[in-house]
Order: sequence, then C-alpha cells, then structure tokens
Amino acid sequence: MHGLSVRDRTQELRVDRERLGQRMRELARFGANQAGGIDRVAFGDADVAARGWVSGLMDAAGLDVTIDAAGNLIGRRPGTVQGALPLVLGSHIDSVPGGGNFDGQVGSMGAVEVAATLADARTRHPLEFVIFPNEEGGKTGSRALAGKVEPRELDLVTASGYTIGDGLRRIGGDPDRLGSVLRPPGSIRAFLELHVEQGAVLDTDGQDIGVVEGIVGIMRWNVVVEGMTNHAGTTPMDRRRDAMVAAARFVDMVYTTVLDMPGTQVATVGRLVAEPGAPNVIPGRVTASLEIRDLSMDRIGEIFGEVRARADAIGSVSGTSFSFDRFYVSEAAPTDPHIRDVIETSARSLGLTTRRMPSGAGHDAQSMAHLGPVGMIFIPSLQGISHAPEEHTDPGDVANGADVLLLTLLALDRS
Amino acid sequence: MHGLSVRDRTQELRVDRERLGQRMRELARFGANQAGGIDRVAFGDADVAARGWVSGLMDAAGLDVTIDAAGNLIGRRPGTVQGALPLVLGSHIDSVPGGGNFDGQVGSMGAVEVAATLADARTRHPLEFVIFPNEEGGKTGSRALAGKVEPRELDLVTASGYTIGDGLRRIGGDPDRLGSVLRPPGSIRAFLELHVEQGAVLDTDGQDIGVVEGIVGIMRWNVVVEGMTNHAGTTPMDRRRDAMVAAARFVDMVYTTVLDMPGTQVATVGRLVAEPGAPNVIPGRVTASLEIRDLSMDRIGEIFGEVRARADAIGSVSGTSFSFDRFYVSEAAPTDPHIRDVIETSARSLGLTTRRMPSGAGHDAQSMAHLGPVGMIFIPSLQGISHAPEEHTDPGDVANGADVLLLTLLALDRS
Repeated sequence: MHGLSVRDRTQELRVDRERLGQRMRELARFGANQAGGIDRVAFGDADVAARGWVSGLMDAAGLDVTIDAAGNLIGRRPGTVQGALPLVLGSHIDSVPGGGNFDGQVGSMGAVEVAATLADARTRHPLEFVIFPNEEGGKTGSRALAGKVEPRELDLVTASGYTIGDGLRRIGGDPDRLGSVLRPPGSIRAFLELHVEQGAVLDTDGQDIGVVEGIVGIMRWNVVVEGMTNHAGTTPMDRRRDAMVAAARFVDMVYTTVLDMPGTQVATVGRLVAEPGAPNVIPGRVTASLEIRDLSMDRIGEIFGEVRARADAIGSVSGTSFSFDRFYVSEAAPTDPHIRDVIETSARSLGLTTRRMPSGAGHDAQSMAHLGPVGMIFIPSLQGISHAPEEHTDPGDVANGADVLLLTLLALDRS
Repeated sequence: MHGLSVRDRTQELRVDRERLGQRMRELARFGANQAGGIDRVAFGDADVAARGWVSGLMDAAGLDVTIDAAGNLIGRRPGTVQGALPLVLGSHIDSVPGGGNFDGQVGSMGAVEVAATLADARTRHPLEFVIFPNEEGGKTGSRALAGKVEPRELDLVTASGYTIGDGLRRIGGDPDRLGSVLRPPGSIRAFLELHVEQGAVLDTDGQDIGVVEGIVGIMRWNVVVEGMTNHAGTTPMDRRRDAMVAAARFVDMVYTTVLDMPGTQVATVGRLVAEPGAPNVIPGRVTASLEIRDLSMDRIGEIFGEVRARADAIGSVSGTSFSFDRFYVSEAAPTDPHIRDVIETSARSLGLTTRRMPSGAGHDAQSMAHLGPVGMIFIPSLQGISHAPEEHTDPGDVANGADVLLLTLLALDRS
C-alpha cells in the first residue's frame, strides 16, 4: 500500500543536528549583549529583525508565511486529507531583558527545523509553524488565538518602550482586528511545544526528555500580618506583638507544609515588606506575597486552606492576625494524556530517557490548550538557570528535543 | 541646729501639681498638630519659640539663664557650700516629627517645676536646670558637654531643614566654639532625669515609678543571607536554596533564643529586604537588620555569638550562608547604684510603688554619665505608646515623678 510506504519513510526521518545548531547560533546574534545573553524584548528592533529572519527560514522550508492580526508569524503547509484539522508547532523568540539563548528559541528553531526536515515529505494533516509574539510580556499572540486578550492590555507599555498595540503594528499585526484571529475550541488537531525545562530536575537527575503533564495553575495572595509597632528598646521580649516574627514563622510554615505534602506542588514567599522597617522599631505590619502552584486548581485550594489554618494558629500564639487577599489566578492547563504517551514512545524509540513532570512556568501551550489537545516536551536546562545569560542547554539535547518533536508530530499525523 | 531645720523644711516640700499640669498643657501649644501631638523638631520655629518660653519660666524661678555654645539652655543657682559640684537636672523639649506631648517634656517641665518649688529654699550644691537641644536628632547638646559631637555632625540636615550647625546658631549656640562647653569627668555631683518609660511595663503592671538601672548598650548588624535565586514554578521544594526561608528561620530563632535567656536583653529584626522581591521568584538574597540591647556590652557580645552560631546551623541545613556586618555601637550607661537607692527611698517615702528596670531607649542621661553619676526616674506610659500623638502619661504620674525628682535632688544635696 502506498500509504504504508509513506509512513515507513517518515518514521526514519531525523532532524539535521548541524543545521539546527547553526541556526540556534545565528538566532543568538539578534539582540546579543555583552553578557553573552540577549536583550530581545518583544517589539524591539532586535525582535523585529529576528522575526524577519525566521520568516525567511519558513519560506525556504516551503511554507506559506503570513502574519495574523495578533502578530503571530505563521508558516503553513497543506495536508493530504481533505478537512483534517491542523497540527500546530511553535514557541516564541522574544526574551526578557537580559535573557538567555534557549527559552523560547529552542521550541521555535525546533519547529522550524521540523518544517525543514519535512520539506519533501507529505502529511495527512495541514501543518502550522508559529512564532508567537510577546510571550514574555503576556503571551499576547497565543492568548489572542484563544480570545483571551483584553482591550486594555493593548495600552500596556512593554519593555521595548512601545505599547502592546503599537508593538503589534511594528511586527505586522493589527490590534484593531484582534478578534479576527480567534480560533474556537476543537479547531486544531494538536499543539506541540518543545521548551527548556527552566528547572534543574532533568539536568540534576541526568534524564533526557521531560514529558510535561501540564502547565501548573497559579494562585497568588497578598498576605498582611498585623501586630503592634513598638520601640525595640523599651518593649520586653515577652510583651511584643512582632509582625516580623509572626511573618517569619509563616514563611517557614509555608515551606515546611508544602515540602512535606506528597505531590509536586510548590509554594513561595518571594516578597516581604516590614513596616516601618527601621532597625530600632518592632514591625507592626508585614505584607508578603504567597504563591502556590499545582497541576490541580482544587489541590491549590486545599493547600491554601491548610496554610491559612496554620497561619491563624501562628497569629493566636504571637498576638498577631493574618489576612489574605487573592490577586492573581492562572488556570492550570493539563496536557493531553494520549499525547504524553506518544511523546514518551517517541523519545524511547530514540533511546532517550524520559520523566513525567509538571511545567512550573507558563507557556504559549497554556493558551493553545483552549483550542485543542496540547503536548509539551522538555529538555534539560543546565543547573536550571533561566531568564539569565547563563541559561544553557547542550546542542545535543536541543537536537534530541527536536527529534522527539518531529516523531511526535508524525505519530499524531498518522492517528 | 540651723542646718537640720533647713533639712526638715525641704523634706516637706512638694511640687505644685496644678502649676506643673498647667505648664505641661502650655508647652503642648508649641508645634501642636491636628493629630493632638506635636511637630516640634529641633531647631524649627516651634522649638525656638518653646525654648524662649521655658527660659522665661527659668527667669521667674530666680535662675541665672544662659545658652552655651552647644545650645544647652541652662538655668543656674548657687549653692551654700563653697566649691561644691553642681547637681544637674534636665531633659529635652524637641520632638520627633509627629511626636507626642510627654517624651522629654515631662523631664523638662519636671526640672523647671523643681526649680520653682525650690525658689525660696537654699541648697548646699549649686543647681543647674538644663534643656538639651536636639535630643531626637542625635543628643547634640548633652553629647557636646561630654565632648562627643564630631565636627562632621554639624553638617547633617535635621528634620527642621536646617543643619545641626545652622540650627545651633538659630537657638543661640555657636557651633564654631563647641569645644568650649566640654565638661570633664568628675565635674558634676550628679545628673538626674525624669522621663516617661516609653514601654508598657509600669502601665501594665500598675507600678508608679521605674528606678532605672542604666541605659542599655546597643549593637546593630546588617545580616546578609545568600541562597540561590530561582524560578518559583520550576524549582521543586526540595531543591531550593531559598534565602527567604533561611532568613525567616533566623528571625524566629533570634526571637526565641533571646526570649528564653534569663535577663532583660532584647533583640529585634526590624528591617528585611528580599531580592529580587517578586512573588514568582525564589529570593536568592535577603538583607536584614539585627539589633541587640542589654545593660552589659559583654552580654550583648555573648548573645550575638550564640545567635551567629545558630544562624550558621540554619545556613547548613538550608544551603544558604549568613554574614554579619556590625554598623552601630552605642555603649551602655549604667546609673549610679547609690542614686538608684535614693530614688527608691524617695519614691517609697511618697507612698509610691517602684520597680527596677533598664532603659531600653537612649536619653541625655547617657551622655551625662561621662561627667559624673547619673540617675533616671521613669513614670508610666499609657500602653507604652511613644513617639506618636497617642503618647500619654496621667498628670498624677507626671506630678509623682516630679516629686520623686525633687526629693532625690534634696537627698543628694544633703550627702
């Protein structure tokens, strides 16, 4: 059968590791800084130039290149089966200020490399290769596809100095027609994103591929601890209502509570401000942040309930009170169970070791989950360093990830 | 014997409680603010006016009024014994911005009331009644008497907007001749200061008079906790080197360690800054203040040694490191043991209850301890509130304190 012989040939396809490595290095020139990293913030000159360069690579791979109203740079190719939903691959090439050369780039160049590798092959499904704009500044491109960008966001000034609205115009988008890019649920066959782990789990444990179980949900609270401001010299230790001491016990309790629970949940107190904040005054008020992440929103709620109960107990003992104001929620986005299996099988067929893990960071895949099933492939980050010039992933790992992306795409195309 | 009959009469002297209360209320007009407190910062217009008003009261009490080069407003009267050293009483009338009506005022009006009460009596020792300038901004007046004011201090800008040097000129001092006010050790018979406790011990425990054992010494350190900055989503709980968690354990450890030790030592962490300080980033660095106060400098050193050892243990467990940089030392100033006994006896002769206690706050008496023996008398502060408009001491307590000041002065005059 003709169809079978096509499958056999595609199953032997592998990415060009040399070409991929070369293109990663070429991309790193755009916005390169003295520190060895990049300043390629969304909508800045380096971002505009790099997007132009990628669109050339897409053209060379035989893709039909367009830029939608949300600034998504999309390279398309048709499938052989009439009416089949598109298989979508992509990531972003913008960076945080002072960023590194792998976050976003690996998934973008990996997708483009898959497109180049498949240039002479046919697929049943149409394929789309997408560079989403402004991931670091709010996932503008991917969220627009899901209809999640609010009009007021367009007025936010980004790190480039341009508002998101003006920035979209700079890269060929049209903020006035943002609604035109919306894609309803069920409009894609699948979305796949390759990305660096941004943690040290794969690197430390010597594993090749992370099979992402989902992008964790996030809740954040402002925590206010009220005690009594007092003179640090005249108030005996046993007559204090020291908001700093209570807050300290809270921070330690959050860490210990969440560490001791089974599961991969994490919780962090990253910000803490004591008032009045002088060395010779007992703080009467401390404000802190609390963030909890987990794959299950219900689980986040349960953990918060436990933390709050224990905070109240700390308050009772120390003559202070705790209040919590939730100011941020990001819904969890589980990946598709079937795609996880396909990623795992693909990786193992290449002789690579795998590990199932959550993604603790947000990604464009999170928005794309509103359109259809998503899968994410992680590769190791050296020491977990991320959003810094020292961010690093070995070229061999990048190529491994691109091969897993390719084989996963092909397996999904067959089903 | 004539001498004896004089003693008998002076022993029956008491302050005029009505007059003292009236003058406390009059003084409160200078710099009065909407909140019911005062903004009478040193060298400001309200301070200048209030000092003028007090000098009038001194004149009315028959004192010889002068202002020395350090701006000390001094009312003198001679003693009957040739060559006897002066007995000195005093405090300050400047306030912190947004201050209250008792800190400094009670000791100043108490001293002036003693002068008025003694207007027709004779004493063996010469008496001096002193209003020290800029207590809140650095004890400039009293420290100048001890030769402790450094030339560069004169350039410091105070809350009034004037430098200390220009401020001294405003109140009749001469910063170019500051050295002329120096008084060597052994130049006074004694210095006595009445002051509000600025703590809640007397108020809470229902005692009338605090017999101050000394003004505590103070040491302050900058504490730096170094961990590793990391992504709050991608770094599992058991792979963190969270400087905030380590700092939190430090804060709790300091409190618990110092609380559990016998003695009246206190320790405070009043300032804490986490970097980078975002809800979604594990802090890699925390800087905090550590302050320890005790009547014994050696004891402060011992406590710090214990705290540092325990901090190192916290660092070992949490993968962080602690470093300490001492940036401030204020020497302890014990009061004179004999004067403590005299204060106690005087208070009890008036039917007042007493308690021995350290002064956790600094006072002009601390500088005066360089000149000769000092004694301090505390009266209750409502709920310990200090440096705020809500600062309050009952008029009866103010009068009690002034009577103890009077009887202590007279007892010392006899010896």
